Amino acid sequence: MGIGTVGSGVFSVLQRNQSEIVRRAGRGIEIAMVADLDTARAQAAVGPAVQVVSDARAVIANSDIDIVIELIGGYGIAKQLVLEAIEAGKHVVTANKALLAVHGSEIFAAASRKGVMVGFEAAVAGGIPIIKSLREGLSANRIQWIAGIINGTTNFILSEMRDKGLDFDVVLKQAQALGYAEADPTFDIEGVDAAHKAALMSAMAFGVPVQFDKAYVEGIAQLGAQDIKYAEQLGYRIKLLGITKKTDKGIELRVHPTLVPNKRLIANVEGAMNAVMVHGDAVGTTLYYGKGAGSEPTASAVIADLIDIARLHNADPAQRVPHLAFQPDAMSNMPVLSMGEVVTSYYLRLKVADEAGVLANVTSILAKAGISIDAVLQREADEVGGEGATQTDLIILTHDCVEAKMNEALGQMQVLKTVLATIVRIRKEELA
Amino acid sequence: MGIGTVGSGVFSVLQRNQSEIVRRAGRGIEIAMVADLDTARAQAAVGPAVQVVSDARAVIANSDIDIVIELIGGYGIAKQLVLEAIEAGKHVVTANKALLAVHGSEIFAAASRKGVMVGFEAAVAGGIPIIKSLREGLSANRIQWIAGIINGTTNFILSEMRDKGLDFDVVLKQAQALGYAEADPTFDIEGVDAAHKAALMSAMAFGVPVQFDKAYVEGIAQLGAQDIKYAEQLGYRIKLLGITKKTDKGIELRVHPTLVPNKRLIANVEGAMNAVMVHGDAVGTTLYYGKGAGSEPTASAVIADLIDIARLHNADPAQRVPHLAFQPDAMSNMPVLSMGEVVTSYYLRLKVADEAGVLANVTSILAKAGISIDAVLQREADEVGGEGATQTDLIILTHDCVEAKMNEALGQMQVLKTVLATIVRIRKEELA
Repeated sequence: MGIGTVGSGVFSVLQRNQSEIVRRAGRGIEIAMVADLDTARAQAAVGPAVQVVSDARAVIANSDIDIVIELIGGYGIAKQLVLEAIEAGKHVVTANKALLAVHGSEIFAAASRKGVMVGFEAAVAGGIPIIKSLREGLSANRIQWIAGIINGTTNFILSEMRDKGLDFDVVLKQAQALGYAEADPTFDIEGVDAAHKAALMSAMAFGVPVQFDKAYVEGIAQLGAQDIKYAEQLGYRIKLLGITKKTDKGIELRVHPTLVPNKRLIANVEGAMNAVMVHGDAVGTTLYYGKGAGSEPTASAVIADLIDIARLHNADPAQRVPHLAFQPDAMSNMPVLSMGEVVTSYYLRLKVADEAGVLANVTSILAKAGISIDAVLQREADEVGGEGATQTDLIILTHDCVEAKMNEALGQMQVLKTVLATIVRIRKEELA
Repeated sequence: MGIGTVGSGVFSVLQRNQSEIVRRAGRGIEIAMVADLDTARAQAAVGPAVQVVSDARAVIANSDIDIVIELIGGYGIAKQLVLEAIEAGKHVVTANKALLAVHGSEIFAAASRKGVMVGFEAAVAGGIPIIKSLREGLSANRIQWIAGIINGTTNFILSEMRDKGLDFDVVLKQAQALGYAEADPTFDIEGVDAAHKAALMSAMAFGVPVQFDKAYVEGIAQLGAQDIKYAEQLGYRIKLLGITKKTDKGIELRVHPTLVPNKRLIANVEGAMNAVMVHGDAVGTTLYYGKGAGSEPTASAVIADLIDIARLHNADPAQRVPHLAFQPDAMSNMPVLSMGEVVTSYYLRLKVADEAGVLANVTSILAKAGISIDAVLQREADEVGGEGATQTDLIILTHDCVEAKMNEALGQMQVLKTVLATIVRIRKEELA
């Protein structure tokens, strides 16, 4: 259902690698029918031998079909069709992270009731088998945290900004021209797409429901080239990370620009590539890297799900891996923490008057809030006004503190007369 | 069977994470019996509640036991016990790469006959779920090549040599003192351990038998600090890689020190960490990173296999993933190429007399062999002898050529009167 970029990739990889797939799976996988509103485009993609229809319900009604692949996207008709396919006893494979992040609980519950599988490897980090690694490969572990570059558009933009010292707006236009960013890039640059994926990984890591609505989401549109430069001078790179952590108090679930030490592998993931770090209590830190989008990388994940389902479609449900890694009756109700409760460290940039006592004022506010300082950098004063008055960039790296404390301290610093502009605050993760 | 470092890790992770494992797997996994020649040590590791025996056959004979974990190591008694366990209808989980690299075909065939599973995720790259990724996550792809840092000891040594500019012998002693290298480090430093793992991955990638005996194996003991330094100057790092590639002529299977561009993530994998790159036709390049050894990382992989087997132990064999990724009746007999047939590029270091015509002589030999040059570096001459005669290090990077041609050219260069010492040749891979 839906044969655009990814659907065409699924079709052509299945054709090209059919004999290899049969050698692995012990059986073939055949595209029996394609539904797309644009039947002409669809027929061109699959050739004359495959039946193309405009009505997706013809696929669902076709009793020869075992598995329905949903590649329409979005929460609208896709949700309805997926639920109808499940109701008709079909297994479903989808790349639709938005749908699952918002309606996952309902869809997985329906699938469990009907005894069918919903495969969604393609929904997170494209071709990287991160869902299989989380659900199966690391199943011995208590997962402690996940941090990932899970949106290629924003990583491309951040890589270019750093590489060429360009501003966000300029690079966004380039990315759109190159096809790395959509005409309406909101979901990507505002962090929504990354939050969809982070919410799915959080559920699989910790055995909680998919809670996209509780995620803290901050994008990269406000990020300045100078902060990328200062971060670099301090030994860090800025990446848009999807982060989820388990703490004693609850679960952190957040997407925001993040300083990462430049010696970490993930700090060196460039361009549109994706990478996910997973830290488990037994295995320690692991990392998974590859293409997070595109026709064939996404098709690779869709077809891996098809092969898994082909193997297990008539198995006892107990022989299948639970959709969200944990048995549906063993989910935890551990709360997702508000951003004020999150503990992390910070990069702060204050534009301050270049006069005595400024650093003392700022640091005493942090000290009173119990926030300790890791590093301070003061950078070349720019002349402003005619009276020889100057201003300076003051960059502070802090140690870990609760975000509510930091918000309070920021409020106090912001009203200092010597602080001349809105303070820039970027979170920092050591990811050790 | 065998409860040393890894066995103790398996026991303690299973205990610690039992409730999490039950929430995932829907059932518990219990260690019913432990066999170890050192019963006192074993009993201390597992506590008084678990039965400890000195005779591994008591485990195999115990009809309450579904899965036997073999952590003895080596080809000797371990092979016999694994085959007996299979014959008794037990599933087997093992971390024994040496055993499977040499006797894998026999063991997997026996398991298929008896309808039992042999899990060996722990045999390659420790806690990294690389076997699951290869066999399942990337099952849509024609795998084109794999290149991995799959021996932590040698990567630790190479990282230290580069970081501190030290020679191999010095660092080896440090590594032994720190527990990163064994008292007899032969299997690690000579590349044998990496070749065991590469042979297993090669089989799973290309659907061929496990052919450790056909692997080309070269270790790091001959590597000099100066080559690491020159490589760095040219933008490369030297890593011991296990490489397997599919070409039109056959399969390459080789372990040797390799120059890798320093901008590749794998070039930045430091210390005892492991990382494996897998390139598939649909997914492109992917990378998997984590701890390749140690008690709990290895236990993570052993227990993941236990959970998989617990889920599928009474499934139809067709519902299980084939041991070597491909159906046993669909294996290919594509040959493993001899090293002379391998195509790669090279780093050459020649100690030459600092006189006119040397470069011309050397490059004309390469030109006649059809080997083209990518870069040349000539480094500070050291005075030798009393007559003002000097010598120079001449470093050449070549483009791809067949190794047999390179061997021929090396033979011709080596006998030039102006070439003053044995030519150093290190292979180079771009891994793009």
